[in-house]
Amino acid sequence: MQHLINLSDLSADDIHALFDRAEVLARQERLEPSLEGRHIANLFFEPSTRTRVSFELAARSLGGSVVNLDVQNSSFTKGETLVDTYRTLEAMGIDAFVVRTAQPGVIQDLGRVVGRNVAVFNAGEGDAAHPTQGLLDALTIRQHKGNFDQLSIAIVGDVSHSRVARSTLRALSILGCQDLRIVAPAAWQPPAQQMPQVVITDNLEMGIQGCDVVMALRIQNERLRNSERLDRDQYVSHFCITQQRLAAAKNDAIVMHPGPINRAIEIADEVADGPQSVILRQVSNGVTIRRALFDTVARSRGWFDS
Amino acid sequence: MQHLINLSDLSADDIHALFDRAEVLARQERLEPSLEGRHIANLFFEPSTRTRVSFELAARSLGGSVVNLDVQNSSFTKGETLVDTYRTLEAMGIDAFVVRTAQPGVIQDLGRVVGRNVAVFNAGEGDAAHPTQGLLDALTIRQHKGNFDQLSIAIVGDVSHSRVARSTLRALSILGCQDLRIVAPAAWQPPAQQMPQVVITDNLEMGIQGCDVVMALRIQNERLRNSERLDRDQYVSHFCITQQRLAAAKNDAIVMHPGPINRAIEIADEVADGPQSVILRQVSNGVTIRRALFDTVARSRGWFDS
Amino acid sequence: MQHLINLSDLSADDIHALFDRAEVLARQERLEPSLEGRHIANLFFEPSTRTRVSFELAARSLGGSVVNLDVQNSSFTKGETLVDTYRTLEAMGIDAFVVRTAQPGVIQDLGRVVGRNVAVFNAGEGDAAHPTQGLLDALTIRQHKGNFDQLSIAIVGDVSHSRVARSTLRALSILGCQDLRIVAPAAWQPPAQQMPQVVITDNLEMGIQGCDVVMALRIQNERLRNSERLDRDQYVSHFCITQQRLAAAKNDAIVMHPGPINRAIEIADEVADGPQSVILRQVSNGVTIRRALFDTVARSRGWFDS
Repeated sequence: MQHLINLSDLSADDIHALFDRAEVLARQERLEPSLEGRHIANLFFEPSTRTRVSFELAARSLGGSVVNLDVQNSSFTKGETLVDTYRTLEAMGIDAFVVRTAQPGVIQDLGRVVGRNVAVFNAGEGDAAHPTQGLLDALTIRQHKGNFDQLSIAIVGDVSHSRVARSTLRALSILGCQDLRIVAPAAWQPPAQQMPQVVITDNLEMGIQGCDVVMALRIQNERLRNSERLDRDQYVSHFCITQQRLAAAKNDAIVMHPGPINRAIEIADEVADGPQSVILRQVSNGVTIRRALFDTVARSRGWFDS
Repeated sequence: MQHLINLSDLSADDIHALFDRAEVLARQERLEPSLEGRHIANLFFEPSTRTRVSFELAARSLGGSVVNLDVQNSSFTKGETLVDTYRTLEAMGIDAFVVRTAQPGVIQDLGRVVGRNVAVFNAGEGDAAHPTQGLLDALTIRQHKGNFDQLSIAIVGDVSHSRVARSTLRALSILGCQDLRIVAPAAWQPPAQQMPQVVITDNLEMGIQGCDVVMALRIQNERLRNSERLDRDQYVSHFCITQQRLAAAKNDAIVMHPGPINRAIEIADEVADGPQSVILRQVSNGVTIRRALFDTVARSRGWFDS
Repeated sequence: MQHLINLSDLSADDIHALFDRAEVLARQERLEPSLEGRHIANLFFEPSTRTRVSFELAARSLGGSVVNLDVQNSSFTKGETLVDTYRTLEAMGIDAFVVRTAQPGVIQDLGRVVGRNVAVFNAGEGDAAHPTQGLLDALTIRQHKGNFDQLSIAIVGDVSHSRVARSTLRALSILGCQDLRIVAPAAWQPPAQQMPQVVITDNLEMGIQGCDVVMALRIQNERLRNSERLDRDQYVSHFCITQQRLAAAKNDAIVMHPGPINRAIEIADEVADGPQSVILRQVSNGVTIRRALFDTVARSRGWFDS
C-alpha cells in the first residue's frame, strides 16, 4: 500500500489486513515510531478540525511530525498551480500529504504527480469519497458483528450529498455485504442506477427491518441547494432514529453516526447515548485506522525498519 | 490533584506543594517527561495567544503533544453540543483539556462529563476566574516576599471586569493574606458584599499606603459597556502607577501587572521597567506554574512512573 | 553567528562556512539534535505559509520545538508595544524568533532588545530584505556554477518591489560576483544610484546575453500601486522567459525563480519544467540553509554540545 486515494484500489484482503494491523497497534503499550523523521502535511482546502485532528493524533503517535497548512485562509498558493504547490512542499521534505478538497479528481491528480517516495491520503473529497471514514465504519462493524456477508446494514438520511455514505457503502461492498439499504426522503436518494446493488426506500421502519447495523448520517446543510432543503419537523417525524423505531431492527443492532450529531433531528438522545450506540467507538476507530494506514504505508515504502 | 477548575478546590497546603514542585522543576537541568505520549488539547472559545502559548510551552517541556483547536474560527462544533465535542475529542485520545471560555459554568460542566482519566484545566472563564493566573501571581509574591499572612497587597484598576483580580484575590485569601485592598474608580469597583474581607477605595495613595505588593490590572476595554468607559486622562491622573505615587507603598514593594500592559495608562514606563517591577517574572512563572500543574496531575493520575 | 538580521553582517567567508555546514548536514543520515529543548517562535506579521513551513521543517529536523504565533489575526499584542511582546515571549522561554514584517527596522530593533541568549532570524522585511532567500539562491548557484567571481547573473522582472532581488544581489556582491544585471521594465527598475555596481536594462535579450544564471522574479501584485501596474500581455511579450529567449544566455545557464510562479507570465512552462530549471532545488535549499543557520547559531551560542 503506497497511498490511500480510492477504496476501490483495495481488495477485501487488503482491508482485513489493515484492520488486523489496527487491532495489533491498538493493543500495544508502546508503538514503534514508524513515522519518525517523517513530515506529514495536512492540506485542507475545506475546513475540518475533526478529521484533521484524528489524522494528526494518529501520525504523532507513530513519531511523525505534522504540519498544518491552512490552505483555505492563507495566501499559500498565491496564484500558483496546485501541482506547483505540491512539488514545492515535496521539495521542502514533506513525506506524506493528507488532503481534503471539494473538487473531485484533485487528490487523484496529486497521487500522479508526487515523487516515488511520497504518500497521499484522501481525507475527504467533495461529496464523492471519504475513504478513511468508510474504513473506520467497516472496522467498527467488524468489531461488533463479524462476518460481513451475513449482515443487513441500513444507512439513513441525506445519502445523496454524503461522501461518508458513498465510502462506507463502497467499503462494505468490497467486504462482501449482500444486504445494503438506503433509507432517505426522495430528495436525498441517490439515483438508483448509481448503486444497483443497494435497496433504496423512504420508509424507515421497512428500511431497517431486521438490520444488524443502522447508520444515521449528518444532514449536510452546508451542501444543500435551496430546492433540496426539507422541512425539519417532517424529517424528524419520518427519519429520526428513536428507540421505538429502532425496535424494527434486530435486538442487538448497533447504531452508528459519523458525527457531528444534530441531536433530536437525525437521532434521538436515548439512542445516541443508549447501549446500542457505537458512535464514540467510531471516533476512536478513526484514530486507530489512520494510525494503521500510516504504519502500513511507512513500512511498505521502507521508511521504517523495525 | 485531578483537574484545575476552581481555586476554591485547593487548600493552602495544596498550593504550597504546587509551588514547591514548581521550584524543584525550575531548578532541574533535564525534566522527566511526565506528559510523554499524552495529548493536550487547547480549546479556546475566546482568543488568547499568550495564555495558550504559556500552557503549550509548559506541556511540551514535559514531553506532551499539544493540539490547538481553533474552536472560535473553525467549524469544529457544526451544531453539535459541547458535551459531544468533548466526548469526541476524548474518544480520539485527548488526555487533558485546557479551556478558555466566556461562559461561566462551562468548564465545571466539562469536569463532570469527561472520563475518569481525563484532566481539565481552566485557562480563563469570562470575568469569573483565571486560576493559573492567580497561582502565578501568588508564586511570584512568595518568591519575593515570603509569608503571606504578614503582607499588605493592593490591586489597582478595573477590578469589576477582571478574572485575574478575582483569582488572585482568591489565591491570596486561601494562602492567609490578611490585608487585601482594591483601588478602583467607583464604576470599576466590585460590590462590597462580594468581597467582604477586602478594603475597597478609590484613593490610590491611601490604597497602596504601606503595601508590600502593588498590582496594576489591564483595562479590559473589550469587556466594558459604554456606561463603564472612563475618561482616559482622568484615569491616568488618578490611578496610573508612577514612581512618585509608588512612594506611598513600602520602599521594597514589588509592582505587578498581568499584561499586556497599556503603558502610561495603567503604569508608567519608569515603574514598569524599574527595579521594583516583577512583571516579566510573572510571565516566566506562568510557564513554571503550568508545568508544575501538568506534572502534578500526570503523577497523581498515574500517567507517569519515574 | 548570533542572529541573522542583515546579510551585510556576513563576510564571504561566513557565508561559505554556512554553505559548507549546509552541505555536511544534507549528507547526514541522522542529524544531531542541536535545537533539542529549544523553542522557536514564528512571528509573522505578514502572512507566508511557505517561508514559515521552511523554517519550521528546518527547526524540527534539529529537534526544535516550533510555536506559530499568528500575530496578524490574533489579538496577541492587544495594544502592548512590540518590545513588550518580545520580552513577554522571551520570559516564557522562547529561544529564537523568526520574524516577518512589512515594517523596515522592526527586526533590527528586536535584535537589540532581546536577551543575550536569544536569537533573531529575519524571514522577510517589507521590500527591503529577505536574507535567507538570498542565501538559498547563492547556495543553489554555488552548487551548480562554483566560483562566483567568474559568473554573469541576470535578475528579471519586478526588481523594485522585490526583497528577494535585494537580498540575492547583496549575497552575490559579498560573494564576489562582478557581473550582476537587472532586466526590468522602466517602472520596475530600482533607482540606478541604489545599485551602482549593477547594470540595468529593459532589454531581456541583451540583459541575459552570455549569462550563467537567469533568475525570474515573482510579480508582487500585492505590493504594486496602480500607477505601477503594467499591461500583462506587454510584460509577457517582453520579459517572460521562454526557451527561445533563453538561448541568448549560455547553453548551460541555470534558470531560477523564488516561487510561487505565475506560469506563462514570468516564465514559460517549457523553461520552468525544463532541464535548465533549478527552481525546486531552490526550494529544498531553503530548508537546507535554514537548518544550517539554526545549527550554526545553536552551536555558537553554546545551546548544544555534541
